[in-house]
Amino acid sequence: MMGGTASAIAPSVRERLEEYGTAARARMREYLRDRQSHHAFYDLVSDYPERGGRVLRASLCLATARAFGAHPTDALNSAVALELLHNAFLVHDDLEDESEERRGRPTLHLSHGAPLAINVGDALAVLSLRPLIDNVGTLGSRLALRVLEEAERMARESVEGQALELWWRQHNTVDLGESDYLRMVLKKTCWYTTIYPMRIGALIGTRDGVDLDRYLHFGFFVGAAFQIQDDLLNLVGDAARYGKELNGDLWEGKRTLMLIHLLNAATSDERERLTRVLGMPRAARTVEEVQWIRERMERYGSIDYARQVAHGLAGAALHEFSLAFADLPDSPDRAFLEALPTWVIERN
Amino acid sequence: MMGGTASAIAPSVRERLEEYGTAARARMREYLRDRQSHHAFYDLVSDYPERGGRVLRASLCLATARAFGAHPTDALNSAVALELLHNAFLVHDDLEDESEERRGRPTLHLSHGAPLAINVGDALAVLSLRPLIDNVGTLGSRLALRVLEEAERMARESVEGQALELWWRQHNTVDLGESDYLRMVLKKTCWYTTIYPMRIGALIGTRDGVDLDRYLHFGFFVGAAFQIQDDLLNLVGDAARYGKELNGDLWEGKRTLMLIHLLNAATSDERERLTRVLGMPRAARTVEEVQWIRERMERYGSIDYARQVAHGLAGAALHEFSLAFADLPDSPDRAFLEALPTWVIERN
Repeated sequence: MMGGTASAIAPSVRERLEEYGTAARARMREYLRDRQSHHAFYDLVSDYPERGGRVLRASLCLATARAFGAHPTDALNSAVALELLHNAFLVHDDLEDESEERRGRPTLHLSHGAPLAINVGDALAVLSLRPLIDNVGTLGSRLALRVLEEAERMARESVEGQALELWWRQHNTVDLGESDYLRMVLKKTCWYTTIYPMRIGALIGTRDGVDLDRYLHFGFFVGAAFQIQDDLLNLVGDAARYGKELNGDLWEGKRTLMLIHLLNAATSDERERLTRVLGMPRAARTVEEVQWIRERMERYGSIDYARQVAHGLAGAALHEFSLAFADLPDSPDRAFLEALPTWVIERN
Repeated sequence: MMGGTASAIAPSVRERLEEYGTAARARMREYLRDRQSHHAFYDLVSDYPERGGRVLRASLCLATARAFGAHPTDALNSAVALELLHNAFLVHDDLEDESEERRGRPTLHLSHGAPLAINVGDALAVLSLRPLIDNVGTLGSRLALRVLEEAERMARESVEGQALELWWRQHNTVDLGESDYLRMVLKKTCWYTTIYPMRIGALIGTRDGVDLDRYLHFGFFVGAAFQIQDDLLNLVGDAARYGKELNGDLWEGKRTLMLIHLLNAATSDERERLTRVLGMPRAARTVEEVQWIRERMERYGSIDYARQVAHGLAGAALHEFSLAFADLPDSPDRAFLEALPTWVIERN
């Protein structure tokens, strides 16, 4: 189904990610360095961006733009803006989720306190505006404004998706189904991780010459598969490679597809116990309770179920690719996009 | 010195604020209502904007634009964007400062928790982009992009100013002078409260036909006087009208001009005690210690000193007005700008 074996797909995707990522990181550093002379505060602002990471969103934007015929640097500012905003989201998300590790090191609010961490997130979001304004010089006013319009939509979808997830946790919502989950992930993850990068890539590559809604489905399927795989790695991954604490999502009470499956599969007694544990503040949960949830997920097949859904989404993405990108000429960039659904569910 | 008596200035400024504020609030509600049907989350997003407040920043923007000959609605979108961003700052500031009251009611993080409050601040900042993009339709691309450029600068100055203040608190910095304070206030308060509103007002009113740096000094003097008066009201104001807890700044360890004056005037023993109290977390401070600081400020004339500085800044602003705005024709809007320095230090 997946149009390639693990051994064939993963290295080629990694290679492309390396290439796109190197270009995006170099430009991002220029924007950060511009400010770093001003105050030690900018060392904190540069902390998350300097921790590495795969720069997936910027890569997807650069790949799509090039696949549509853009010059390699046409989409670079937009890609950097997205990566800065992504880091802004990470800083605030870590605080909102009370996460303890990010890319193998303590989260920013743990090392520098919540007040400065909130401000660092705000600063990263503000910094993401500059490259979008610089687009005027490289792309012209009309196209730069179109990218800004798309960015506004993407940022709105993202905060609304984050609001949904926080709302569920704050109100200890347990009455959730798969469609609730997918709607949340569409807004929280897909818009800024896959849909928007491809939309602005296509926008820049075609000089606003194509209907961007054509890429909604592909972006949604790939993005949702990506998020589910990410949540799976939180449960079953290799701690050293994952860079976040294993089972962190269980400690945080995050409404993952596995948890939602378990809530619906459990007996009413178990559901009651789950609801009680999920309603506690993080600090009040015990190792025993977290292990019990983990064990129930195993017992009810919640993990296998989520794996199947991710595979189904990856398959749907491959099908969508053949519909939406059929007319693109062959290129390494097109091949990268085509390989993405498979890579997303195979990565670990 | 002030070119008007309290009884003459205050009512006329209040009347204009009422007029500008009504227009800005009505348009802001339209932008918020657009989203409110989507999710109960937007009720939280609308909370601070709906609490009222004097809408000073939007008013200053509308007044300047009109004083420079703009149509009354030309600057409305920009004014609304600024008011939304102001509310975003308030939500995050309240959390960073552990403030307990805002406009007479509990702060958002106290009633809905820190995670949702961070997200509400992010949402308000994102919502502030939409009216700036809508400027393209009303002002044309070129002018809309100029406003965006100014907005990016303003937002950057604001987060850098906030970073300075948080940094001082986080590192318990006590080695500060008046110039440190004024530099922080220039960035944290003046840029978005006075300088930017007047810059984009003049930009829109003259269709980018004037050197915006002409208004830097007036904006700085008025904005700094405004901030010092605000901090004074925190110590000596009428609790019911002020809308925040009295002495809240002392509880928060905020580096006000009064505190900096006291640190420099105190004996070395007192300075040591001050440093120790300021270094405690808010919850560890006692009523006795807060009252002791308050009493020392009285004793060393720190409050009178700050009042004098605010008066000096207001006088400098009036002088700057006569230089920078001399060529503006008479109008109620020009009169509002001229009355502002006096109003700022007389309000209570």
